[in-house]
Amino acid sequence: MTNASEELFRPGGRTAAQLRSIKLTPDYVATAEGSVLIEAGNTRVLCNATIEPSVPGWLRNSGKGWVTAEYSMLPRATLTRTPRESERGKIGGRTHEIQRLIGRSLRSVVDLKALGERMIILDCDVLQADGGTRTAAITGACVALAMALDKLVAAGTLPVSPLKQLVAATSVGIVDGNILLDLAYEEDSRADVDMNVVMTEDGGLVEVQATAEHNTYTRPQLDALLDIAASGVKNLLVHQRSVLKK
Amino acid sequence: MTNASEELFRPGGRTAAQLRSIKLTPDYVATAEGSVLIEAGNTRVLCNATIEPSVPGWLRNSGKGWVTAEYSMLPRATLTRTPRESERGKIGGRTHEIQRLIGRSLRSVVDLKALGERMIILDCDVLQADGGTRTAAITGACVALAMALDKLVAAGTLPVSPLKQLVAATSVGIVDGNILLDLAYEEDSRADVDMNVVMTEDGGLVEVQATAEHNTYTRPQLDALLDIAASGVKNLLVHQRSVLKK
Amino acid sequence: MTNASEELFRPGGRTAAQLRSIKLTPDYVATAEGSVLIEAGNTRVLCNATIEPSVPGWLRNSGKGWVTAEYSMLPRATLTRTPRESERGKIGGRTHEIQRLIGRSLRSVVDLKALGERMIILDCDVLQADGGTRTAAITGACVALAMALDKLVAAGTLPVSPLKQLVAATSVGIVDGNILLDLAYEEDSRADVDMNVVMTEDGGLVEVQATAEHNTYTRPQLDALLDIAASGVKNLLVHQRSVLKK
Amino acid sequence: MTNASEELFRPGGRTAAQLRSIKLTPDYVATAEGSVLIEAGNTRVLCNATIEPSVPGWLRNSGKGWVTAEYSMLPRATLTRTPRESERGKIGGRTHEIQRLIGRSLRSVVDLKALGERMIILDCDVLQADGGTRTAAITGACVALAMALDKLVAAGTLPVSPLKQLVAATSVGIVDGNILLDLAYEEDSRADVDMNVVMTEDGGLVEVQATAEHNTYTRPQLDALLDIAASGVKNLLVHQRSVLKK
Amino acid sequence: MTNASEELFRPGGRTAAQLRSIKLTPDYVATAEGSVLIEAGNTRVLCNATIEPSVPGWLRNSGKGWVTAEYSMLPRATLTRTPRESERGKIGGRTHEIQRLIGRSLRSVVDLKALGERMIILDCDVLQADGGTRTAAITGACVALAMALDKLVAAGTLPVSPLKQLVAATSVGIVDGNILLDLAYEEDSRADVDMNVVMTEDGGLVEVQATAEHNTYTRPQLDALLDIAASGVKNLLVHQRSVLKK
Amino acid sequence: MTNASEELFRPGGRTAAQLRSIKLTPDYVATAEGSVLIEAGNTRVLCNATIEPSVPGWLRNSGKGWVTAEYSMLPRATLTRTPRESERGKIGGRTHEIQRLIGRSLRSVVDLKALGERMIILDCDVLQADGGTRTAAITGACVALAMALDKLVAAGTLPVSPLKQLVAATSVGIVDGNILLDLAYEEDSRADVDMNVVMTEDGGLVEVQATAEHNTYTRPQLDALLDIAASGVKNLLVHQRSVLKK
Repeated sequence: MTNASEELFRPGGRTAAQLRSIKLTPDYVATAEGSVLIEAGNTRVLCNATIEPSVPGWLRNSGKGWVTAEYSMLPRATLTRTPRESERGKIGGRTHEIQRLIGRSLRSVVDLKALGERMIILDCDVLQADGGTRTAAITGACVALAMALDKLVAAGTLPVSPLKQLVAATSVGIVDGNILLDLAYEEDSRADVDMNVVMTEDGGLVEVQATAEHNTYTRPQLDALLDIAASGVKNLLVHQRSVLKK
Repeated sequence: MTNASEELFRPGGRTAAQLRSIKLTPDYVATAEGSVLIEAGNTRVLCNATIEPSVPGWLRNSGKGWVTAEYSMLPRATLTRTPRESERGKIGGRTHEIQRLIGRSLRSVVDLKALGERMIILDCDVLQADGGTRTAAITGACVALAMALDKLVAAGTLPVSPLKQLVAATSVGIVDGNILLDLAYEEDSRADVDMNVVMTEDGGLVEVQATAEHNTYTRPQLDALLDIAASGVKNLLVHQRSVLKK
Repeated sequence: MTNASEELFRPGGRTAAQLRSIKLTPDYVATAEGSVLIEAGNTRVLCNATIEPSVPGWLRNSGKGWVTAEYSMLPRATLTRTPRESERGKIGGRTHEIQRLIGRSLRSVVDLKALGERMIILDCDVLQADGGTRTAAITGACVALAMALDKLVAAGTLPVSPLKQLVAATSVGIVDGNILLDLAYEEDSRADVDMNVVMTEDGGLVEVQATAEHNTYTRPQLDALLDIAASGVKNLLVHQRSVLKK
Repeated sequence: MTNASEELFRPGGRTAAQLRSIKLTPDYVATAEGSVLIEAGNTRVLCNATIEPSVPGWLRNSGKGWVTAEYSMLPRATLTRTPRESERGKIGGRTHEIQRLIGRSLRSVVDLKALGERMIILDCDVLQADGGTRTAAITGACVALAMALDKLVAAGTLPVSPLKQLVAATSVGIVDGNILLDLAYEEDSRADVDMNVVMTEDGGLVEVQATAEHNTYTRPQLDALLDIAASGVKNLLVHQRSVLKK
Repeated sequence: MTNASEELFRPGGRTAAQLRSIKLTPDYVATAEGSVLIEAGNTRVLCNATIEPSVPGWLRNSGKGWVTAEYSMLPRATLTRTPRESERGKIGGRTHEIQRLIGRSLRSVVDLKALGERMIILDCDVLQADGGTRTAAITGACVALAMALDKLVAAGTLPVSPLKQLVAATSVGIVDGNILLDLAYEEDSRADVDMNVVMTEDGGLVEVQATAEHNTYTRPQLDALLDIAASGVKNLLVHQRSVLKK
Repeated sequence: MTNASEELFRPGGRTAAQLRSIKLTPDYVATAEGSVLIEAGNTRVLCNATIEPSVPGWLRNSGKGWVTAEYSMLPRATLTRTPRESERGKIGGRTHEIQRLIGRSLRSVVDLKALGERMIILDCDVLQADGGTRTAAITGACVALAMALDKLVAAGTLPVSPLKQLVAATSVGIVDGNILLDLAYEEDSRADVDMNVVMTEDGGLVEVQATAEHNTYTRPQLDALLDIAASGVKNLLVHQRSVLKK
C-alpha cells in the first residue's frame, strides 16, 4: 500500500490528501431561516434550516429541543435517473441511513436544553451528485443551522446561540491501495474501504463509519485513514467559519 | 374594473401587463440529457430532461413515444416548510394536477410517432416558490426537452427533432379588479380569478384553465385575460428561442 | 370546420348542440343528508352529501366552513375493469384532478361564512361511465348539496341556506372538425379539443378548462365552444331547479 | 329462549323466520360481463362480474381458473359516513374478511378446471347498507357470475358453463333470546350471536360462521340457527333461479 | 365416510381424534406482562400480552376496556419463505382474518366493564408453522391474557380478574373422508372441509367457522366435526389450567 | 477516564471487558435452510437463512450471487410495546440502518462469484431485546449462513462453501467514563459513545461505527474501544466455530 504514489492520477489532478474545491453560498434561497448551497467539486447539496415551534411528542414538556435532518436526491442528480421516493411511496434504506447520520452529527454540537422546546429541521437536497453527498450535507447543514440559530439570537428569542461549536465531515477511502481524501463518485465506486468521519472544531470525533466493501482493512489502515480525514475536516471548518463571519 | 389603474402598485414596480424578469440557465446540472434553471422573479424551477429507452406498457409495440413530467417542491421553497411527499408516502392532489398539466402541454408539441418508442421524463423541481411555478415549469421544461431531443439528433439516433414548435405558459389573474400578468405569490393569494394559459409559437392554444376563487367571472373578463396572457407567452417564447440558439 | 354539418352522426341521433337525456333521482339512498343519482345518457353518478360537524385543521376557529368532494369510479363503470384505488393503495392523478375541480366548483356558490364551522363532503361515485362523469358529478353534487343545506335550515341550525345560487357543468369538444356539446365516451376519445365549463345561474363563469389533445385550438374556436357550453349549462340548471322545487 | 314469541316486533313487521323482500335487477350496468343489483330490504349491493383472460401467477400453466371477489362500501352506504379505503391507503380487516368469504363461497360451485386459465372477479359494492351486506353480496354475485359464464358459453369459448350449481347466503342471529332470520342493521347490532350460512342448491353447506358477540351459545342454539338459515337460503335460491331463467 | 378407518395413517402416529402434543411455556420472554410459548406438534406460537393504559377513540369515556390481537408469521415459519408484510407495506387478508378471530374469541371471556378503560393487546407471532396456527394462537393468548390480568390484580389495580373463564380453540377437518382432529399442515392442505371451533370452559361455543374447500358438507358431517372438536378443546383447557395454577 | 475502576458495577457482575454469556442454539426452527437462536445475556435473536434461486434484477446474468438481511423486533421484545412496522405500513429508519449493516457485514466474507446466481436472505428477528441486538444478529446470522451454505455443498450444488471465513460483531461503549464491552440496554442508554465493531477470523476489520451520543470522543478513546472490541469478537468467533463443528 502506498499513501501517495507518484503515478497516482485523480480526477481534477488532485493529490491524495487534497479536498475538492469547496464553495459555500449562503442565503441560496430567501425563504428559509438558514440556507446554504455547498459545492464540493461537482457535488452540490442545498441545505435549508427550518425552525419549528414544537418538538416531537416524546420531548414535550421536557424543556429540551431537537435537531433532525431530511435528505433527498433530485431524480437527475445522478447520471442515471433515480425514481422519486414520493412516487415509490416510501423512503429507502440509504436515505434513512444518511438522514439519521446527519441528524446525529448536528445534535452533537447543539445544547438542546439551551435551544428550548423547538425543533430545527435541516433539509439537505442533492442537486448534483458526484460522491460525498452525505458528508457535504453535514458540512453545509451545520452552516445553515448556525445561521438559523443566529436569527433566534438576533430576534431576542434566545440570549446566546445554542451551537457549541462547528462540525464538519469528509470521506476517505482506499482505492487501488492508495489512501485518498474526499472521494469523487468514480473513485468511491472502486474503493475497497469507504469511511466517513465527522469532527468538531476542538478535534473531537463525533462519528466514524468505516466500511469494507469487498475486503477487510487493518488497524494501521484505519489509523492512516483517520489522520488524512482529520486534516480534511480542519480545512472544511475554515471554509465554514469564513462564510459565517461575513 | 380597471385594467391598469394609475394607483396600481405591484411588487417590483411592474405594470399590469409586464412579466417578471426571466432568466433561463441551460446545463444547470451536467448529469441530465437536458437541464434548465428557469427563474421568473423569485420563482426558481430546475427542469431536467431524461431520455428513457422504453415506454409505458400500454404503448409497447405501438411505434409511438411518450412525454411525461414530475413536479415537486423542495420543503423550503416556501416560507412555511411543506412536508415531503416521500415522508407522507403519497403524492398530493395539487402535485398530481400540476404534473399532468405539464405533461399534456409538452406532448402537444412533440410528434410522438417521430420520437419512436422512447420516453422523455421532465423533472421539474421548485427550488424557490413565489407564484407561477407550474407555468414556469412548462416554459423551462420545454427548453430542457428541446435540448434532450437535439442530443438524439446529434447522436444520429433521430434524423430530425420531433419537437414541432416551442410551447410556453404564463398565469394571469384579476386582483382587486385589475387584470394582472404573471402573478407573484402575494398577488395570487388575493386573486379573484386565476388563469393559466399554455400557447405555442404559432399562436395556438394548448390549455386554458380559468378558475374563480371566490367569485365568478364574465366572458369579457375572460377575453381580456386571454389577450394579456397571449402577449406574455409571446415574450417567453423569445427567451426560450434565445437560449436554444446559443 | 363546420359547427353542425348535415352529415353529422352522433350516438342517439343527437344534434351537435344537444345534451344527452338528463335524469336526476333525488333521495337515491336514504342514508345521506342529500342524495341524487344523476344520469346523463349512459353516464350514471351517485352524488351523496354529508354534513360533518368540524372543519379541516387550517380552518378551525376561523368561523368559516368548507365544501369538498371525493370522486371514484366503480371498477366496472367502464367496459374494461379499472382496478380499485384502495387496492393500489393510492389515489391516482386523474381522480385527484377531478375531485379538486368538483370541490372548487361547489365552493364558488356557497357562502362559507354563513355555513359556519362545518364541512360538507360530496361523494361522487360513478356507477356507469360514458363520458362527462366529472361534469355530471358537479351538476348532481350541487343538487345533493342544496338538499343537505336545506335540511340544516329545516332543522333550525341555519336561518337561511348558504347556497348563493346553483352551479352546473358540461363538456364540449371538437370532434372531426365539429363542435359538439356533452361528449359521450366514444366522441371524447376522438376529440381534438376537450373543454369543461362550470357556470352559475347568473351566467357567471366558475371554471373553464380547455385542453388540446393532439392539436392546438384557436381563439374563435374557444369562443364557439364557450357559446355552446353556455346553452348546455342553462338547460342543466333548469333540470336542477325542477328537482329541488318538488 | 323463545324462537318466535308473540310479542316479537321486527322492522317491517316480519316474522322471526321471514326474509326481507328480495329484488334482483339483472344488467344493472351495461358495461360488465354480468351485473346484478341485489336489494334485501334496505340493503342494496351492486354485483358486477368481470372475465379476465389470465390467472394469478401461482396458477399459471396449471390449466385451472380462479374466482375472486372484491367488496367495498360507498362512504354514505351507512348513516355515518365511512372514510374511503382508497383515501386511507389500505384495505381494512373487515373488508378483507368479507371479500375472502365471498370468493371462497363462489369457488365452491365453480369447476375451476372446466373454467380454464381465466379469472372471474366479482365486484360487490354496497350502495346502501342495512345489515347482511356480505350475504347479499354472495347471493347477488352468484347470479352475476352465472350470467358471465353463460356469455362464455354463448360466445363458444366454453362448451358448457363451469357453474356446478347455485349458491346463496343469509344471516341468522339471536336477538333478545329470539332466533331471527336475515338480520337488519338495528337487529344485528343488538345480536348476541351472529351467524352467516352459505349453502348450495343440493343443500350442501359451504360455509358456516357463527360468532358470539357478548355471550356464548349452545349446540341446540346452533342447530336451531342452522335450521332457520337453511329455509332462508332455499328461498333465496328460488329468487336466483327465476332471474336467471328470463 | 369413515371416522377412524383402520388404515388411517397420521403423521406422528396419532389417532383421528387425538391432539398433537401440547406444551405451554409461560414467561417465555421477561419483557411482557404475560408471555406464553405454545407448541402444538411442530407449530410454535409466541403469545405476549401488553396492558395499555388507554382504549381506542370510540371507547373513550365509556368506562369499558378492550381486548385486541395482532398475528404475524416470521418469514421462515414456513418451508418456503413468506415475505414480510412490513416490506410489502400492508397487512394481507389472511392476517386480518386471523387477528380479528383471535380478538373476538378473547373478548368473549373478558368482562370489559370490569377491565375498565384499558386495552390488552395480544401479540401472536408464529415462530414455526405446521397447521393450526390460529387456534394455537387463541389457546396460548388466553393464557398470556390471564397472566397479564392476574398482574393487574396482584398490583391492586383491579380487585378481581375480569377473565370470566378460559377459552381455547382447535381445528378439525375432513381428509380423505376421515374426520380428523387438530390438522397438521400436510393434512390441512388436503382437507375437503376445514373447521375452527372456539369454546369456553362451561362448554359454550364462541366461534364456529366451517369452510368447504372443494366440496360442500352435510349437517351430519358438521355435527361429527363439532363433537370431535369439543373433546379436543376440553383437553386444551386442561393444559391451560395446569399452567396457570403454577 | 478509568478503563476498569474498582467501584464499577455491571448488571450480572461482569467486568468491563467481559462479554455476556453467549448461547447459540442451531436448528431452532426446522423449516429454514439455516437456523440459529443466539442469546447474549437477555438479548435473544432468531436468525434464519433462506436460499433463493434468483438474484435481484441488477445482478441478473452477472454470474454473481447476493447476500442480504432483514431485521425486525417482535412488539414485546422491549419493555414498552413497539408497534409493528407492518401496521405502520413502512420500515423505519433504525430498521433500515441495521439490516443494511448486517447485509454488508455478511457479504464481506462470502465469495459472491463462487456462490453463483442465488441469493441468501438472513432473517433476524429479535424475540427479546436487552441491548446489542444488531451485533448479536450479525454473529448469529453468520452461523445460519454457514449452515445454509454447507447444505448447498452437501447437496452437491456447490463444490465448496463460498464462505471465506467467519465474521462476528460486538458493541463497546463509554459509560460514566468507563470503557465497557458488550453493553446491555441499561448501559447503552447512558453511554456517551456507542461503537459497533465487525471483524473476521483473520483479524480484519469489516465495519467500525463509533457514535458520540452527547459528547465527542478522542483518538485515544477510539483506540481503547477498538482494543476491547477486538478481544470480544475473538471470543465470539470461538463460540461460532464450536457450534459449526458439531
